Amino acid sequence: MASVDYSKQGFSAIRVELDGAVAVATFCRSKERNTFTAPVVHDIIKAYDLFDRDDRVRVVVLTAEPTAPAFCAGADLSGGWMGMFTPENEKEGEHAHRDGGGQVTIAIHRCRKITICAVNGHAVGVGVTGLQLPCDIRFIWAGAKLAFPFVRRGIAPEAASSYLLPKLLGHSRALSLFLTGATVSPDSPLISGLYHSILPTREEVFPAALKLAKELAENTSQTAVAVTKGLLWHTPDTIEEAHILDSRAIRVLGAAGDAAEGARAFVERRMPKMKDKLSDNLTPWMPWWREINVNHRKAKL
Amino acid sequence: MASVDYSKQGFSAIRVELDGAVAVATFCRSKERNTFTAPVVHDIIKAYDLFDRDDRVRVVVLTAEPTAPAFCAGADLSGGWMGMFTPENEKEGEHAHRDGGGQVTIAIHRCRKITICAVNGHAVGVGVTGLQLPCDIRFIWAGAKLAFPFVRRGIAPEAASSYLLPKLLGHSRALSLFLTGATVSPDSPLISGLYHSILPTREEVFPAALKLAKELAENTSQTAVAVTKGLLWHTPDTIEEAHILDSRAIRVLGAAGDAAEGARAFVERRMPKMKDKLSDNLTPWMPWWREINVNHRKAKL
Amino acid sequence: MASVDYSKQGFSAIRVELDGAVAVATFCRSKERNTFTAPVVHDIIKAYDLFDRDDRVRVVVLTAEPTAPAFCAGADLSGGWMGMFTPENEKEGEHAHRDGGGQVTIAIHRCRKITICAVNGHAVGVGVTGLQLPCDIRFIWAGAKLAFPFVRRGIAPEAASSYLLPKLLGHSRALSLFLTGATVSPDSPLISGLYHSILPTREEVFPAALKLAKELAENTSQTAVAVTKGLLWHTPDTIEEAHILDSRAIRVLGAAGDAAEGARAFVERRMPKMKDKLSDNLTPWMPWWREINVNHRKAKL
Repeated sequence: MASVDYSKQGFSAIRVELDGAVAVATFCRSKERNTFTAPVVHDIIKAYDLFDRDDRVRVVVLTAEPTAPAFCAGADLSGGWMGMFTPENEKEGEHAHRDGGGQVTIAIHRCRKITICAVNGHAVGVGVTGLQLPCDIRFIWAGAKLAFPFVRRGIAPEAASSYLLPKLLGHSRALSLFLTGATVSPDSPLISGLYHSILPTREEVFPAALKLAKELAENTSQTAVAVTKGLLWHTPDTIEEAHILDSRAIRVLGAAGDAAEGARAFVERRMPKMKDKLSDNLTPWMPWWREINVNHRKAKL
Repeated sequence: MASVDYSKQGFSAIRVELDGAVAVATFCRSKERNTFTAPVVHDIIKAYDLFDRDDRVRVVVLTAEPTAPAFCAGADLSGGWMGMFTPENEKEGEHAHRDGGGQVTIAIHRCRKITICAVNGHAVGVGVTGLQLPCDIRFIWAGAKLAFPFVRRGIAPEAASSYLLPKLLGHSRALSLFLTGATVSPDSPLISGLYHSILPTREEVFPAALKLAKELAENTSQTAVAVTKGLLWHTPDTIEEAHILDSRAIRVLGAAGDAAEGARAFVERRMPKMKDKLSDNLTPWMPWWREINVNHRKAKL
Repeated sequence: MASVDYSKQGFSAIRVELDGAVAVATFCRSKERNTFTAPVVHDIIKAYDLFDRDDRVRVVVLTAEPTAPAFCAGADLSGGWMGMFTPENEKEGEHAHRDGGGQVTIAIHRCRKITICAVNGHAVGVGVTGLQLPCDIRFIWAGAKLAFPFVRRGIAPEAASSYLLPKLLGHSRALSLFLTGATVSPDSPLISGLYHSILPTREEVFPAALKLAKELAENTSQTAVAVTKGLLWHTPDTIEEAHILDSRAIRVLGAAGDAAEGARAFVERRMPKMKDKLSDNLTPWMPWWREINVNHRKAKL
C-alpha cells in the first residue's frame, strides 16, 4: 500500500495522527458528546482498514479529548431508533439492515495490529459495545460511568456484543450487565476484568495507553501479533487441531527474520529490532477462517 | 394464555406469588432442608413454563424461607442414587434416564423473562447446579456454604452444569470447583464471579433481589429482554453472523412500541412505560436456534 | 496394565515417585534452569500416558525443586528457534512440524486423573503454556515471575495455549497477556484466576499441593473424576445435549460401586472408600468425542 497521509482522508468525527509506529485516533466532536453517528461509523471503518494495511502502523490507540463530556455518549436518540435505519435498507426489508455499531466492531476486530482503547470519559451503549469490546487492550479512567441501557430503551445489545462480551468476561457478568441495563464503574467486579489498567484521573489515561503502545510498537513483531490475534479469535474446535495450527505458525514464524532477531536479542540481552512486515505475506494461509461478507444484501439466517 | 392463578396449580415444594410483574417462587419444605426431590422437579418445570408464557410476568425471583436450614440441601441420598432412577426409565436402559436437575435447569434456562435467584441459605450439589446456574442473576448471603460434592460421592456434576459453569466462570474455576469437590463461601475467588451481589445477612438477600426485580419489571422491555437472552445463549459461531443477527433484532425491535417509548422517555428524561408483550410475537423468527426435544425416549449421542 | 516401576522408565528430565495414590513428577535439571528441551517433551508424554493408564494413580502433581532458579525457564533459545525443528520434519515441509509444547499439553490434557501443577519458581513461555495450562489445578508461589514473551521473540503463543487460555480465563485477559508479551505476578488481576491457591513462599507450594492431592486421592472416585473431566472439556454444543449426556453419566455412575459407597458414607457421616477403577471400563462410551491423531504426517487444515 502506498504511504497514507492520514490528514487527507476527510475524517470528520475523528482526528488521526501517526506517532512513530503508533496510530492515534481521537474523537473530536466534544460538543456533541462524541455521540455515535454515521460519520463515526464511516471514519472508524475507513481508518482501521487503513491501519490494517499500512505497514508503518504497529499499534492503534483510540481515545477522546480528555475534556470532552464523554468518551462516547452512545447513539443519538433525538430522532428515535427509526432515525438510524437508512431509506436504502428500508426498501429491502428487515433483513437488509446493518447495524452501524456492528460494522465498527468488525472493522476494529479485523485489524491485524494491536488495538488499544483509552477510555478517558463516560461511555454509553455503543460507546462500550462497539468501540471498546473489539479492541485488544483497554485503559480506562476510574471515574468513568459505563452504561448498558439496551433493555431499558426497548432494544437488544448490538455491535456483536452478544458475541464478544461473554467471550471477554464470561456469561455470568455479561448477563448481569445486559439484563439489568446497569450503569457501573470500571472497578465494579462485574466489569473490571475488561480493563488492562484503571487510572485515577482522566488525564492519565491516554498517556498511559500511549506509553504501552510505543513500547509494544518498538518490541513486538508485526507478523507474530497478527498470527496471535488470529489464533485467539479463530481457534479450532479441538485442542488437537489447535496444536496442528499453532505448530505450523511456530514453524513458519520461527524461520522468519523476526524470530531469529528475537532469539538473538534475547541471547545478547538487548531489545530486538523487528523488521518483518504484514505485506511480506509470510503466512499466505492466513486467514485460515472464512470471513463472511456481511454486505451481502439478502443474507438470511 | 388465559390468566393463571398461581395459588391453584397444586405446587407442593414451592409457593408462588405474583407481586406486580414479579413472580416469586419460594421453597417451602424447610423441615426437609429443601432437598431436591421429585416434587421440586415437577413444580419448577411447571412454574417456569407458566412464567415464560404469562405476559404479566416480567421478572422471576426464586428463593427459600430465610429461616430454613438450607436454601437447598441437594439430593436426598437416604435411598442412594438408585432411588432416583424411575422404574419406567429403568425398563428402557441407561439411555432413557433423564436427570431431574437437568430438567429443572432447562426449564429455567428456557424462560424468556429475567430470572433471579436469591440464595439465602446453604446450597449443596443440585442446589447450586440446577437452581442457581440457569438463572440470569444471583444474589447470595455471604455466610452461605456452597458445596460441589459430586466426585466425592462417586458421580459427575449434573444438571447440565458442565455446560453452564465453564461458560459462566471459565474453565479454570469450573475445574477447581468440580474436581476438588469443594465447599466454598460466596466470596471465594473461585466462585464470587457467579454472584451479582453478596449480602452480609440472610434476611437481606430476598429484599435486595426483590427490589432489583421490581425496578427491572418497571423499566425494561419484555421483548428486548427475551431477544437479549436469546442473543447471549444462542450466539452464532462467527462475529459476522452475530452482526447480521443482532442487526435484524435491532431493526425489528427498533420499529416496535417499546423502543419508541424508550427513546422518548430518554429524551424527556422520564422513566419509560413499556407495553410490548411476548404474546405480540414481534419476533416470529425466534427461536432462531434448534430446541432439542430431550424427552425423546431413545435419544442417543 | 501391569504394575509400573517409575524408577525404571529412563526419565532424565523429571523424577517420578509414587506417594500412595499420588504420582509426583519433579523437574530435576535445576542447573539448566529446567529449560524445555526434547527430554522434557519425551518424559512428560511418557509419564502422563502411564499415569493415565495406571489404576494406582489417582492424582498427579508436577513440580520442580524449590531451590531451582526457575520452575521452567522456557525454551532454550541458544540455538535460535530453528534449532527446534527436527531434520525429519524439515524434509516434509511446514505442515509436518509438531510443536513440542503442544505435544506435552495434549499428553497432560488427555490424562484422566486429577492433574495438579505446583509452580514453585519462575515460569517463562512454555513453562506456563505447556506445563501449567493443561493441568486441572494450579498452586503457585506469590513471588514467581510469569512471562509470556512470544510476540517479543517473533513467534506466536504455542502449546495449544490459544485454545486453552481463553477458555480458562476469558479472552480479555488472554489478549492482554499474549499481546503485551507481559511478565506478571500471580496476584495480577490479569492472571490470578488461573490459580487455585497462591502461597507466600516457594517452600510452601509443593507441600500444599501434595496435601490437597492426598486428600483428593483418598476421597474422590477415579471414574467420577474421569467422566467429570470429559464433560467439562468435551461438552456438547447445546444445553439439551449436555443434559442427555450427563443424564447417561449419572445413570451409569449412579449404579456403580463408588456412588453406592459415596451415598452410604454420606448417610453414615464417614469418609468413603472408593474402589472403582478406570480399567473396569464402566463407561465404554468414553471418549464420546473424536480424538484426532496429531501424528498424521500430512495433516492439513
